[in-house]
Amino acid sequence: MKRTNDFEALKAECYELNMEIPRRNLALYTWGNVSIIDRNAGVFAIKPSGVSYDELKKEDIVIVDLQGAVVDGSLKPSSDTQTHAVLYRDFKDIGGVVHTHSTYAVGWAQALEPIVIYGTTHADHTIQDIPCTPPMSDAKIEGDYEVETGVQIVEHFRKMNLDPNETQMVLVGSHGPFTWGVDGAKAVYNAVVVEELAKMATITRQANPQVQRLKEALRRKHYERKHGPDAYYGQG
Amino acid sequence: MKRTNDFEALKAECYELNMEIPRRNLALYTWGNVSIIDRNAGVFAIKPSGVSYDELKKEDIVIVDLQGAVVDGSLKPSSDTQTHAVLYRDFKDIGGVVHTHSTYAVGWAQALEPIVIYGTTHADHTIQDIPCTPPMSDAKIEGDYEVETGVQIVEHFRKMNLDPNETQMVLVGSHGPFTWGVDGAKAVYNAVVVEELAKMATITRQANPQVQRLKEALRRKHYERKHGPDAYYGQG
Amino acid sequence: MKRTNDFEALKAECYELNMEIPRRNLALYTWGNVSIIDRNAGVFAIKPSGVSYDELKKEDIVIVDLQGAVVDGSLKPSSDTQTHAVLYRDFKDIGGVVHTHSTYAVGWAQALEPIVIYGTTHADHTIQDIPCTPPMSDAKIEGDYEVETGVQIVEHFRKMNLDPNETQMVLVGSHGPFTWGVDGAKAVYNAVVVEELAKMATITRQANPQVQRLKEALRRKHYERKHGPDAYYGQG
Amino acid sequence: MKRTNDFEALKAECYELNMEIPRRNLALYTWGNVSIIDRNAGVFAIKPSGVSYDELKKEDIVIVDLQGAVVDGSLKPSSDTQTHAVLYRDFKDIGGVVHTHSTYAVGWAQALEPIVIYGTTHADHTIQDIPCTPPMSDAKIEGDYEVETGVQIVEHFRKMNLDPNETQMVLVGSHGPFTWGVDGAKAVYNAVVVEELAKMATITRQANPQVQRLKEALRRKHYERKHGPDAYYGQG
Repeated sequence: MKRTNDFEALKAECYELNMEIPRRNLALYTWGNVSIIDRNAGVFAIKPSGVSYDELKKEDIVIVDLQGAVVDGSLKPSSDTQTHAVLYRDFKDIGGVVHTHSTYAVGWAQALEPIVIYGTTHADHTIQDIPCTPPMSDAKIEGDYEVETGVQIVEHFRKMNLDPNETQMVLVGSHGPFTWGVDGAKAVYNAVVVEELAKMATITRQANPQVQRLKEALRRKHYERKHGPDAYYGQG
Repeated sequence: MKRTNDFEALKAECYELNMEIPRRNLALYTWGNVSIIDRNAGVFAIKPSGVSYDELKKEDIVIVDLQGAVVDGSLKPSSDTQTHAVLYRDFKDIGGVVHTHSTYAVGWAQALEPIVIYGTTHADHTIQDIPCTPPMSDAKIEGDYEVETGVQIVEHFRKMNLDPNETQMVLVGSHGPFTWGVDGAKAVYNAVVVEELAKMATITRQANPQVQRLKEALRRKHYERKHGPDAYYGQG
Repeated sequence: MKRTNDFEALKAECYELNMEIPRRNLALYTWGNVSIIDRNAGVFAIKPSGVSYDELKKEDIVIVDLQGAVVDGSLKPSSDTQTHAVLYRDFKDIGGVVHTHSTYAVGWAQALEPIVIYGTTHADHTIQDIPCTPPMSDAKIEGDYEVETGVQIVEHFRKMNLDPNETQMVLVGSHGPFTWGVDGAKAVYNAVVVEELAKMATITRQANPQVQRLKEALRRKHYERKHGPDAYYGQG
Repeated sequence: MKRTNDFEALKAECYELNMEIPRRNLALYTWGNVSIIDRNAGVFAIKPSGVSYDELKKEDIVIVDLQGAVVDGSLKPSSDTQTHAVLYRDFKDIGGVVHTHSTYAVGWAQALEPIVIYGTTHADHTIQDIPCTPPMSDAKIEGDYEVETGVQIVEHFRKMNLDPNETQMVLVGSHGPFTWGVDGAKAVYNAVVVEELAKMATITRQANPQVQRLKEALRRKHYERKHGPDAYYGQG
């Protein structure tokens, strides 16, 4: 049987990653949450609901199982916990999930516009547009809303034939960005990236309203510099 | 009979809330003011007129009655005091009022445009567009201007059938945002929120000039996650 | 006869005001300058040319006469010294002059667009649009350029029938903002204001491309709250 | 024969210049690199590949020869090393090269738009538009990509008849800015400048979509105030 202090390291790491959100200006007050999973233990750690980053403490982090039921912690987990749970169940290789209300990414999500790939900064991270899910049906909104938000992401990836290991970010239409990654640090990094890509795309369209999507060869080149068998970026 | 030091706690809290304004980048120099009310005592505390946040001290805070007459303090209260007084008289449940000249909210107020509800960040706070009052008549401008500013807010809410407990922010047309809340901290929070919503709406329209208002079901869902009898956001 | 240490106080004040420029994010590197005048002594103090704010020291400030000739100091005065000199000679009541390359004000100056008065933030400072001088003739550019820049400001104010005591800021077309005031602190304040007004006007036009100039009654009301015989803003 | 500690001063300077990149908000994480050349030794110092600015240490800097082969250092040099090498080989007078993904400059690069010269801030640095290279051919992308990026810059300058000593910045189309200068400090300065010029140009076009290029006389005047035989800006 698990005891409370088994989760100390997981909570501590989850806390540190959550504190990156205000440091990187990705959310005001309580408007974001980071979770990280321990797949062996079958649990993930997540920010408690409605607690401001100013007041968040390491011991406030909540441990839940893959159905989102609380395993450890005295606070209620994030109201988005079920969305995280769906992503962990369906995207088998991810180790962390981040949700924020960062300004430009929300601006595009509200516009129901995918972030078109216009340059190599984008291609360094994925060769696809950052997808934006369509408006949710009323039935689903009135159903199990946070579960449906996760399901909608997963189904949109399936429908668009996107690989969640290659495209590690999405705009939930009318709402805002969710990002993930092999671990929590990568998921937070991707939350910074999606905000920057949204801002760059805004400027690009202002500078040239007729701008075209980045050409295929350049998309592949930059992605493959950093990812896959022939990657040569970094020290790896 | 009230003595000066009766108001020390009220002044101290009002001072701290005023200092949030420059910390949150909501106003330059003297361009904002926060008040909080003590309904039992029938007075409210407010920033003095024309004193820069850099120089503001706790003891500078002025105590006025609900007609705006000074009850305690050696400085003149904010030139917007009468507007605050009208709001406290008509919106019976509010505990704090904030006025700023934050950049994006002023940008929209000057445009005489309500901030349309485009996403869930907005719906987390109100299911209505943030209203913008129409231009004031010349007679009212040349009359008791600051009182009329308050009256205009109250009348616009009545005319638009808005509930000030649900929609806790307004753009005064050609001028800027006023926000309020159950207490001063909530009013300051709402001043941050209205600035962010204005910025997000600007980006949303840039990304998609044909964007539509957020669908009804999603408006209700997000608002009711946080407010009302079935709220499940936060630790409450 | 004047001795070096006569100007120590003037240099110290000028230095402090210059340091407000980077603190308020109004200029990168060396892209700005503040001067203040001592009308009794017939001299003004100004930043030296091409010295970065990072390295500027109090003793680097240069003292020049109203023709711009160096009276005290071992460095060359700002290349814009002659423009300041013209303003001091023609605008008899001003005590300080500031020039920056702040981003939004330069954006509008490059657009050759006056900053239209759209709201009360603007009317709190002047009831006029912030004027923008037309492109300078080639003959003047190739003549005594910095003197002509000052002359152009003065002539534009005359032609537009503007009062430099009421409108304390201008955009020099294709170049950037100059501001002034009764003293150096007011001139620096106005440099912050013109940048903010330019940013707000940009947002206002984005939110409503058909926006109209602020109505006359509101312009007068806000200006007269703060200025003139019936002013009631502040503690004065 | 060179020994390791011969390069200590070069590494130390290169490290300090690299740290200016995050300080000046020109790049997130690892998205930039600065190099400086020692032409006598026939080597240049450059940031290692994929090392975050948060973790970069002086001793991580890599020394390479003008073909980009590592001469000293235990890490892999920046993936953009070959681009720097081409610039050093072809632009004989430059002492430093900088590449960033600063937001506005990338926005314009992605738009495949040169930054038109709209004002004197731009003319203080060059009398030309900041050029933007056209999309690279697929053959070159799939060839020696980083070398080709450098070649493309050099060929574009030749074709446009631009002097790299006068125009010290370029937008690589679909990618982002490269800047250079007589030394590393000037190259970093130019990286700040190109970002600011891109932002100013964005605002200028918003304020006046019909804006015209700066007139010839003003371009020459401002450039020659700062550069060439008759320069009179600064203390030189």
